[in-house]
Amino acid sequence: MTVPAPRKAVVLLSGGLDSATVLAIAKAGGFDPAALTIVYGQRHALETDAAREVARSMGVGRHELVQFDLRPFGGSALTDPSIGVPKDRGDADEGIPVTYVPARNTIFLAFALSLAEACGARDIFCGVNAMDYSGYPDCRPEFIESFERLANLATKAGVEGSPFTVHAPLIRMRKHEIIRKGLELGVNYSLTRSCYDPAPDGTACGHCDSCRIRLEGFRLAGTTDPVRYAG
Amino acid sequence: MTVPAPRKAVVLLSGGLDSATVLAIAKAGGFDPAALTIVYGQRHALETDAAREVARSMGVGRHELVQFDLRPFGGSALTDPSIGVPKDRGDADEGIPVTYVPARNTIFLAFALSLAEACGARDIFCGVNAMDYSGYPDCRPEFIESFERLANLATKAGVEGSPFTVHAPLIRMRKHEIIRKGLELGVNYSLTRSCYDPAPDGTACGHCDSCRIRLEGFRLAGTTDPVRYAG
Repeated sequence: MTVPAPRKAVVLLSGGLDSATVLAIAKAGGFDPAALTIVYGQRHALETDAAREVARSMGVGRHELVQFDLRPFGGSALTDPSIGVPKDRGDADEGIPVTYVPARNTIFLAFALSLAEACGARDIFCGVNAMDYSGYPDCRPEFIESFERLANLATKAGVEGSPFTVHAPLIRMRKHEIIRKGLELGVNYSLTRSCYDPAPDGTACGHCDSCRIRLEGFRLAGTTDPVRYAG
Repeated sequence: MTVPAPRKAVVLLSGGLDSATVLAIAKAGGFDPAALTIVYGQRHALETDAAREVARSMGVGRHELVQFDLRPFGGSALTDPSIGVPKDRGDADEGIPVTYVPARNTIFLAFALSLAEACGARDIFCGVNAMDYSGYPDCRPEFIESFERLANLATKAGVEGSPFTVHAPLIRMRKHEIIRKGLELGVNYSLTRSCYDPAPDGTACGHCDSCRIRLEGFRLAGTTDPVRYAG
């Protein structure tokens, strides 16, 4: 009996909690994942180090890094220092937040598609989530479905009848469900970084939307976040 | 009587003949274009200098450059030195050429969309052409239409009812028609570069697919290509 080789996949890995969980899900699903980390001039490069450690901790064989600078485009609190990162917002559900980066997930998935086609993978995994940030247009199921249709028109593989599938396994999960799933699969969340506005030593602020949602997720999952918070 | 301000647009400008023509078409259509040049580790950086000169010659107010490296991905003669650029192919119509770069136009349009949303433009212009390289999947009208649908699901502007239009004015034009149009609009083609494999001083090889199509285009347009060719 021959065991089939695991199917290749490309996993977008940011260094945050969600994409680390997605990597574990892809591995648990029998895929051989190549990780792809995209650095676009966001405020902190700590996430990149986190992505490297997460990939290493999960035995990923190939980890590609693509770097470019979206800061000259402006238009987002994550790339423009003149726009403040909101802290302690009473209600995160107020439309599209200033941390929205124009077309970010379109850019991310375009690179993932390029790497997937070049390396012979037909499965792309990403950590987009429509629950916690319902305001981001490029985190909705209809965006993912539309990108998948595009991918199969845009590529040699798609046109030649070897279509791509875009997996967004977290899209309808709440943060505490994601955390429970990741803990079940052995994700080491102490390696991950989520804060939009960390201190230079990597300590999370504990007050931005991302920290608040993460902390609440660990609380609802009945456990403690292993990363360090200020104050 | 007040004259309305010209509408902003983003024009993908490579430094080649097609995108220079598209820039002229956008200007002639009354748009105020921001040019976007994308450097992805293709074999020659001469195109970037050409893009700068073309933008300057047409009085473009904003010219953004995005740089990243697709070479580690591999899979194309334009990014992988181990794959040769084909020369003097008798028939260019042999399926998808090795100069295809996986998902390249998806990546390009994703960046154009990001810049457009960030700067308040709703019109994106690109020079894709389905006639000369019928083999490239991401040069077909159905690809452009699919990207436009994606753009309006992916963005804050699209979701909020201020949709994007992706213009590909050359998509059904032959090279000589493009050249005639550009000459009519005053494009200085001596500033443009098309060769896939130029000499270090910028001299075009005259034998790659791109040179052959360009030379034939000038011949059919009844004029002479002003750029220098080897031999």
